[in-house]
This record gives sequence, C-alpha cells and structure tokens, in this order.
Amino acid sequence: MSLTGKVLIAQGGGPTAVINQTLVGIVLEARKYPQVTKVYGAVKGVEGIVSEEFLDLTQETTHNLEQVALTPSSALLSTRVKPDSKYCHEIFKVLKAHDVRYFFYIGGNDSADTVRIVNEEAKLANYEMRAIHVPKTIDNDLVINDHTPGYGSAARFVAQAFMGANLDVRALSGIYIGVVMGRNAGFLTAASVIAQKYPEDGPHLIYLPEREFSIDKFLNDVKQIYDRTGVCVVALSEGIRDTSGTPIVASLLKDIEVDAHGNSTLSGTGALGDLLTKEIKEKLKISRVRCDTFGYLQRSFMGCVSDVDQHEAREVGERAVQIALWKNVDGSVAIERTGYYSVDYRLVELAEVAGKTKLMPDEFINTAGNHVTDAFKYYVRPLLGSGLPSPSLLRAPKVPKLLRND
Amino acid sequence: MSLTGKVLIAQGGGPTAVINQTLVGIVLEARKYPQVTKVYGAVKGVEGIVSEEFLDLTQETTHNLEQVALTPSSALLSTRVKPDSKYCHEIFKVLKAHDVRYFFYIGGNDSADTVRIVNEEAKLANYEMRAIHVPKTIDNDLVINDHTPGYGSAARFVAQAFMGANLDVRALSGIYIGVVMGRNAGFLTAASVIAQKYPEDGPHLIYLPEREFSIDKFLNDVKQIYDRTGVCVVALSEGIRDTSGTPIVASLLKDIEVDAHGNSTLSGTGALGDLLTKEIKEKLKISRVRCDTFGYLQRSFMGCVSDVDQHEAREVGERAVQIALWKNVDGSVAIERTGYYSVDYRLVELAEVAGKTKLMPDEFINTAGNHVTDAFKYYVRPLLGSGLPSPSLLRAPKVPKLLRND
Repeated sequence: MSLTGKVLIAQGGGPTAVINQTLVGIVLEARKYPQVTKVYGAVKGVEGIVSEEFLDLTQETTHNLEQVALTPSSALLSTRVKPDSKYCHEIFKVLKAHDVRYFFYIGGNDSADTVRIVNEEAKLANYEMRAIHVPKTIDNDLVINDHTPGYGSAARFVAQAFMGANLDVRALSGIYIGVVMGRNAGFLTAASVIAQKYPEDGPHLIYLPEREFSIDKFLNDVKQIYDRTGVCVVALSEGIRDTSGTPIVASLLKDIEVDAHGNSTLSGTGALGDLLTKEIKEKLKISRVRCDTFGYLQRSFMGCVSDVDQHEAREVGERAVQIALWKNVDGSVAIERTGYYSVDYRLVELAEVAGKTKLMPDEFINTAGNHVTDAFKYYVRPLLGSGLPSPSLLRAPKVPKLLRND
Repeated sequence: MSLTGKVLIAQGGGPTAVINQTLVGIVLEARKYPQVTKVYGAVKGVEGIVSEEFLDLTQETTHNLEQVALTPSSALLSTRVKPDSKYCHEIFKVLKAHDVRYFFYIGGNDSADTVRIVNEEAKLANYEMRAIHVPKTIDNDLVINDHTPGYGSAARFVAQAFMGANLDVRALSGIYIGVVMGRNAGFLTAASVIAQKYPEDGPHLIYLPEREFSIDKFLNDVKQIYDRTGVCVVALSEGIRDTSGTPIVASLLKDIEVDAHGNSTLSGTGALGDLLTKEIKEKLKISRVRCDTFGYLQRSFMGCVSDVDQHEAREVGERAVQIALWKNVDGSVAIERTGYYSVDYRLVELAEVAGKTKLMPDEFINTAGNHVTDAFKYYVRPLLGSGLPSPSLLRAPKVPKLLRND
C-alpha cells in the first residue's frame, strides 16, 4: 500500500521548452490521490529544499497550471548546485521535517545522482519515502532513454534556424556558421540536418564533440563546398574539441591571446564563432563570412516547440506519479521507443542513469566525421513534432539573354 | 491607357520573413492583365538585371508561388550593390531590350533611389515605362511609411526571444544582454518591450542608436536594476554609438586592442555583446552574465512570422501592380495607418522616400534614454500579429518554514 504524506517536486539544471509540462503532469496527477496530503514545489531546485522555499501547488488553479505548462524554462526556478553527500543529508532532513513521502526531481544525469543519494539517506534513516528522477535535458545525453524531454523542442529550434540560414545565405552568398549548444553530446547540433530539403541545402558540414576537430580539415572542408557552390552552411557544436580533448574555444583563445571571453564559457559568448570566422577570412580569403551563436535562444525561445516533446514531457511526469503511487518503488523514468513513432515509459534503477553521459552512437555520424547519417535523420525526425515549416524555392524557367552570351 | 509589355520584379538588400509575400502579390496580380505579356524575376536584384539573369515567373505554378510566399528570405536572391548613375543606365538598357514596361523593385530606401534614377533614364530616353518601388525592411526606417513590411515579423522574433530570455534569466539569475539588429534606427530593438507581461519582466533596459550610449551610465543602470531584483535583462541595438557618433563596437574593440572580430562588422559577430559582458563582470563583479547576439536568426528564422505583416506584404505588392496598371503612374507605395488597427496604401513620389532614413521619434523613447514609452507599445503591438505566445508564472502561495526562520 502506498504511503500517506506530501509530494515535493523540484526542477534542476538548464531550462527546456517543456520542463513545465512535466511539472504540471506531476502536479495534476498527484492531486488526484487521497494519500497525497499536499503537493509542494521547491523554489530554485535543491537550493530551495535546504532553505525550505516551497510553494503549495495544491493551491494553484488548474487553468494557470495549464498555462504554465505551455511556458518554457523552469517555473519553479532552477539551480546549478550539484549536491554532495552532506548537502543531500540536509535535503533529507527537510523532506523528513515536512513529511515529504514522494520526491520528484526533474533534471539530467546530475539530478538523477542527487535523487539516488537522497534516497539512500532515507533508507539509512529508515524513513519510508519514494524518490523518482524524471528526465529532461536539451542535450539528449541521458543513457538508457531513447531521447529526453526538452530535446525535441530545442532540436526543432535548431532545424528551423538552419532553414532560415540556408535561405539567407542563398540570397546573399558566402559562408554561414551556426554554433549550437552541446558540451559533450552532439545530438542538438546534429538536428540541423532536418533543414535539408532541396539537394543544395545546408548544413553542408556538421561538426560534433564526438569527433576530433582539426582547424585545417575544417578549412579544407569549407573550401571544397564553397568552391563548388558559392555558399557553405556549417553547423558546429560549441563543445568541439581537439586531439587532446581540449575544447577548441579554449585552445583558440589561448593561441591568439584573447582573454576577453572569460573562462572558456562555452555558451553566452560569440568567441568560438568569431574566431572560426576570422580563420576562414584570413586563410581562405572569403569575404562574406557570418556566424550566429544560438546561445540561450535555442532552449527558451517562446513559440518554437515540438508537440511530440510537449506530450511526452507531460506524460513522463504523469507516469512518474503513477509509478510511485501505484507501484511504490523508486527509480528513474526512462523513455523507450516502441514504434515509428510511438513510445512507452519504464522505471530503471537510479544508479543506471545517474552521472552517466550518452554520446551520439557511431552509426549516426558519417565516416569523414563532418556530417550525420540517414540513420540519425530517421531517429530524430519524429521528435521535432508536427507542423514543421518547410521552405519552397522558385522553379520557374530561365529567360534567354538578348544582349550578352555568358 | 496602360502600356503593353513585360513586368520585371527584383528584390534588393537584406532578406525579410515576408519579402516573398510581396513578390507573389506582384506576380499573381500582374498575371491577370492582358497588357502584361510576361512576368520576369531578376536573379540577385540589380546584378541580375545587368547580366540578364531572369526567371520567367509567368511559367511558375500558383501553388508553388503560394508556398514560396510563406518562405522567408528573397526567393529571387538579393544583392548589396548600390547602383550609381552608370549602373542605372546599364539597368535601363536591359529593361528596354526586353521590352520591360513595368519595373517593380522591392527594397529599402537605397532601392527606392535606384528606381528613381532608372525612371529618370527612361524619361530622358523617351521610353514609356512605369517604375514602382515597393517597401520592405526589418529596420522599419523608411520615411512617410507608418511601418514597413518585414518589420512586424522580425519584431515578433525579438519579442518572443526576450520572453524566453526573461524566463531563462529568472530561472538561473544574473544578467542577460540580447544584441538586436539596427544600425541607425532602434525600432527592432525597441520591440523587445512586448516581452514585458508581469511587472518584474524584462527587458529592464533598452538602448537604441537614437541616444548616445555611455558605458559608465550603462553599468550604473545595470547595477541599479540588478541590486534591486537579482536579475537584469537588457535589449541593445548593435548600432549604439558614443558622443562622437562612433559605433560602440568600433571604439570598444580599439580600446582593448582585440582585432579578432574583423572590421567592426555590426552583425554576424558576438564582439559587442562579449565586450559588454566583460565590462559588467570586471567592473560590477557579477559572475553570471550572458549575452546572445540575435544576428541572422531574427530576419530569416523559419516559423516566426506576423500574420499582419504577411497580409500587408502581400497587399503592398498587389496594390503596386494595381497602381501601375490602372493609374499608369510611377512612385513608391507607402503604408498609412488608418485605425487601430487598419492600414491603407498610397503612392508617393520616389524622391520623397529615396535614400532617407526614419529614426525612432522622441515620443517613443523615455527621458533617461534607456527604455521606450507606452506610445511605442501602442504603436508596435498590432504589427506583431495575432497568436503571440504569452508566458505564465506560478502564483501558488508560499509554505511556512518548519526548520528555520529567515
């Protein structure tokens, strides 16, 4: 029989476009059960737990919850704190004091590890409590999961951005580089491939953290495409690294003694793109080279969301509550692909997910290490959802010249 | 009675999300008239005219034209060439050779000037021809026009981006700077104000090229907001300039001897944002400072468009043809606001628009020069169109603390 007591929900790490779907899925499902005395939300993730900053979500209207579900970024606010054992002990003390019997933490692999440690604290203290990790991350780097809530919407933003980049570069020629988030895993950068509709469409080159990045090879790749077509659209992960595993942004910045960009923050700076732009201009003598660093736009842009991602994010929250309340077990909810395209959810051990990082598998990356395969396109397309815009080009015939022949 | 002969359409300057609506408005309307023998499109603007690179748009399906209308960026491709008198003479020679009797050039104030000069060439040569400038520019800087097609959709992107930025910064605290396009006019940057829904929402500060920018005042403004609220969201035009009229990006880059960012290109580089970020970190000792330079995303993003902008862009093209064919006159089509919200179109002299730049009027900018007024909000809101997303925050009550009092 399931426990009687409070539910506590927290959101951790970087925001996603659908993380509040999961929050609302948990709240609305939890409010149905008589064993659940209250549903609390921790403000600023684990920070809010240790400081007892809770909102009583039992006293929030269903209508406003539904509106919040459509709003990107963590409605309960978030934190970058990664709790150690001592911090987890503090968390546990607060949970116990408030009679929290169900703890749901929405986050990535670090959050899964926090849930694991807090759960062990509870067991040691003989405190009966269910602890469930609910997945989210735009990086799509959780092991076991086919993919993670948040990824589909960010991937959709990246695909739509590259559709626009293709059209913009086509109109005025030159080179375009789009720098995409992803410190270790290249899934988000790879999603740019969905922008390819017509044969000449970019991205012509895709660079991922899973493959060594060489400036010389990069310049050579760009030159080959540009010489042939007069344009080149490049999707590039902020996490690309050299042979030694050092992020390119760090080594490049050191080489040219620019320290204006701080401690090699990968996001929120145009450094990497600007430096590659400079390399192309100087070494390939191409004048029109433009770069956009997508930065925070890609994870919180209001109005670019995958309906598939929304539905799954909602369902994974709802399912987490059902597992905890009906089955009375702990763990991490994982998304399994069951068809093309359908999913189901299952509970896995916290230790299976906690602290581990999934990378792009080899079959998703081409042999040259500068693009992705059809297997990846097949994998990623359903996640971007329905109603994806699709550019169209003119196909009218050319008119014969009257004054000149060339 | 109107002339019999060909129609030629060209697109100039930077792309917009709705410039193809105007193209398709012209093509579909022009194809209705028996006097119009063919409808040609020049590839790459005026460059394509002098090299006779034309597509026969009489031979393009209506269905594909409707799909192209929904596609951002110039379907006929574009050019940055600004023709002088000699170039305009070359243009005229080609128009005459192909029996072009109606010339429509979709572009900004430079394009209007090209139309004006070509039209004068035709008059001098006693060649009967109608020349019409059809407005577009995301900068919204054409005189006489209440606003220009392309602005509403770019403004919508900026507003939606700042909605997301508000939510992202709220979740993780700190400072956020969004750098928006606009070399001389601040209309696009100012549109960020539509992201303000709740009282605490950003942008808290808006800096425009119309007002002198001082680093010291900027730092002081940011500090005041941040000290009070723990967050500060800043919208900043890439064209902001110092007392001498020099763009800040140029003077800042010189000061700290960073030449990695090239010849002070305003767009397609993260330089300005990175340098302001550095100033805040160093002088205000605030650690979490993030900046996104919206770059090319804001003008060509596929999937963020204002329906009002779409309709007007279509109509301005259609109306341009009607004016040329029924009234047999030359000029520039201008958009007039006739209600809240309705518009109509009228023809003005080419010389009235050509080469002139409209700036934000004083009543749209606050006294401190770091934000916009309600008059601007009233002006801009209808242009962003219907179905604008709207974020929602939780309003649940706080829970009393049990373990600590603070």
